[in-house]
Amino acid sequence: MTIDHTRNTTSGTTGDDGFVTVPPGLAKVVVTDTELGDVRGAEGFYHYRQYSAVDVAEHATFEQAAHLLVHGHLPDAAEEAAFRTRLGALRVLPDELAALLPAVCATTDDPLQVLRTALSAWGGVMGLRPLYDASADEALDAALAAVAVTPTILAAAHRISRGLEPVAPDPSLPHAEDYLRMVAGTAPSTSSTSSTASAPSARDVRAVEQYLVSTMDHGFNASTFTARVIASTGADLAACLVGALGSFSGPKHGGAPSRALEALDEIGTVDRAEPYVRERITKGERVMGFGHAVYRTKDPRSEMLKAVARRYDDPLVDFAVAVEDAFDRSLAELKPGRELHANVEFYAGVVMKLAGLDPSMFTPTFCVARVVGWTANILEQARDPKIIRPAARYVGPTAPQPMPHLLPEPVPA
Amino acid sequence: MTIDHTRNTTSGTTGDDGFVTVPPGLAKVVVTDTELGDVRGAEGFYHYRQYSAVDVAEHATFEQAAHLLVHGHLPDAAEEAAFRTRLGALRVLPDELAALLPAVCATTDDPLQVLRTALSAWGGVMGLRPLYDASADEALDAALAAVAVTPTILAAAHRISRGLEPVAPDPSLPHAEDYLRMVAGTAPSTSSTSSTASAPSARDVRAVEQYLVSTMDHGFNASTFTARVIASTGADLAACLVGALGSFSGPKHGGAPSRALEALDEIGTVDRAEPYVRERITKGERVMGFGHAVYRTKDPRSEMLKAVARRYDDPLVDFAVAVEDAFDRSLAELKPGRELHANVEFYAGVVMKLAGLDPSMFTPTFCVARVVGWTANILEQARDPKIIRPAARYVGPTAPQPMPHLLPEPVPA
Repeated sequence: MTIDHTRNTTSGTTGDDGFVTVPPGLAKVVVTDTELGDVRGAEGFYHYRQYSAVDVAEHATFEQAAHLLVHGHLPDAAEEAAFRTRLGALRVLPDELAALLPAVCATTDDPLQVLRTALSAWGGVMGLRPLYDASADEALDAALAAVAVTPTILAAAHRISRGLEPVAPDPSLPHAEDYLRMVAGTAPSTSSTSSTASAPSARDVRAVEQYLVSTMDHGFNASTFTARVIASTGADLAACLVGALGSFSGPKHGGAPSRALEALDEIGTVDRAEPYVRERITKGERVMGFGHAVYRTKDPRSEMLKAVARRYDDPLVDFAVAVEDAFDRSLAELKPGRELHANVEFYAGVVMKLAGLDPSMFTPTFCVARVVGWTANILEQARDPKIIRPAARYVGPTAPQPMPHLLPEPVPA
Repeated sequence: MTIDHTRNTTSGTTGDDGFVTVPPGLAKVVVTDTELGDVRGAEGFYHYRQYSAVDVAEHATFEQAAHLLVHGHLPDAAEEAAFRTRLGALRVLPDELAALLPAVCATTDDPLQVLRTALSAWGGVMGLRPLYDASADEALDAALAAVAVTPTILAAAHRISRGLEPVAPDPSLPHAEDYLRMVAGTAPSTSSTSSTASAPSARDVRAVEQYLVSTMDHGFNASTFTARVIASTGADLAACLVGALGSFSGPKHGGAPSRALEALDEIGTVDRAEPYVRERITKGERVMGFGHAVYRTKDPRSEMLKAVARRYDDPLVDFAVAVEDAFDRSLAELKPGRELHANVEFYAGVVMKLAGLDPSMFTPTFCVARVVGWTANILEQARDPKIIRPAARYVGPTAPQPMPHLLPEPVPA
């Protein structure tokens, strides 16, 4: 058995049948090395490349953070300007895709399904070559184009589904600002056209940008893994992203900030917070927005987003903090020692609502961020020549059994 | 470490960091148990459930074989009639999808990309629920609907891309026959409309049907694995299939019968076969249609399809057999002991060409078959509550490093 991964671990061993037995669901099974980042659940810490992701979200723009993940380093001023110009230009949808979008929106109310279908069609429109054949520059072009069109598709789908005209991107604007502007439907900043919708404020833009940066990547989750499996076959970038979106849409994947906000709505008032959480904790029921598969501590994204939310002088923030406090207090009393904390969803919904986004756009906004992590992972995987192809073990009745001859007549000659 | 799989194998072991080390690409790593079938590469044998897949292809219809894979047993007469009626009715495209198809075909010449985009949209049109929430009956309905619409989509795309009207399915016909009829563009058998295209013969239908049955499933290949990863998140069936198609489109996945036929065209005449293969074998170059990742023997599918091809009294068959013989002879002489043999692609292209299919429809026809295996795998995976989520190991610079404060101004308050 050839082993590539030798640092700090014992190798898996094979049985007489040549199979390697591992924990169910491949839990903790190392499928690849990565230089993109990691999540340290026990420490409540995650990072992009060598930087704390929270630091990146606090001190970098969307473009700077995306450059860090995709290119491997923070851009200098010239690199950042070039990256921003490139991303801005790529936000403009190809004509054939823009023409297709209304028909796609007519097939479903689910913006993630619109994005899945649109990105699949986009791969064709762009004539993307398989990553197996593409040069590094071609792969990078495709990656940045995917990052760029995702907010345009989602904002247009949001508006089309409400009977509104999509708003074209303004390539001169920063990514996060242009996204919010396209969703809100305010006129391009360079135009004098009047609009009834109010433009997102600088505070709104920066709040959403920090949310976007903080959720660009997060370890080796199921959608990222899916993207890398498909990339390992040498397929084109759209094929990888469409698969990632498929896994992301799975209820076991998680990532629905609107659910936590719905729980806040359900609680309604501060005085009902404690009875609400106590009842659920006692019954062993889940409180949406609390608990995480990896973090045994406060979710660092939740802590950062709480600080972002506090920039708004809004009763919703005080209410959310009161609910979190009630949860922490009640859990400590009812289930001492249990490590359940507010997760990224809890304050993400609060922040996005305060920034003017409709709850139907919370999960799509997550995709605007995560497409960066997916593409960075796809580019990294595409450099590995090895296909990811595990095995299954047959456990049915012994084969072969005699096959009944079902066809009434001899095979036509 | 909890181990589910204990039969005949030693378990993988964990290192100090909790990671489980396994061979690159998860080769031979058991990710799931399956009752669907297996490939025994050393024996040149593969099976569906407990039956030799070659036996199934020789003695069963498409419907009987699909019933075996999806439901777990060969149907009795009443079950088969019900299954055929159900599949026939489900071949009719939902109106919204039929309306969308021309616009999707306008985005790409690649029928697999059309299928990917169309199945993604189809999931929305059907309002498919996540498998996590769907009942077993709902999941089965979705699976059969996907199997049924795939040939309709591909046949319609084939005709639309040539400026022809799609031909509606005839639910009264068997699946394989209706597929060939929709591609060929012959009028429904119940209609008196005249048509210039000649209807596929019974021999053509049975030849393609045997190809379809023989390629419905084939162990735990990369597209099947992708479908199961997405299914493990609880996503809807369309999400799983779209991801499977993504991996299937990867050049490392394989499955392009037209390449082997192109090699035959390149060789041209029998007398050029031996020099052609000898030159390539000597140089260590690949001859398309020969060699397989798993089989160390004759590919059982190739052997069966050779027999199917021989039902046609056509010089192409003799030529293909002569090329295979020249290859086997030359390899034995030049690289004695090397186990390279004609694979499924070699005679698949010959069979499909003889049955009247255009080479552009060879790979799509493979999908008409494989969608059965994908859906059967998805249904099996959906019954397993465990998400498939392995790990990656961070190998970049130590984190955290101090993050430069890139933003020129304080965060807006």
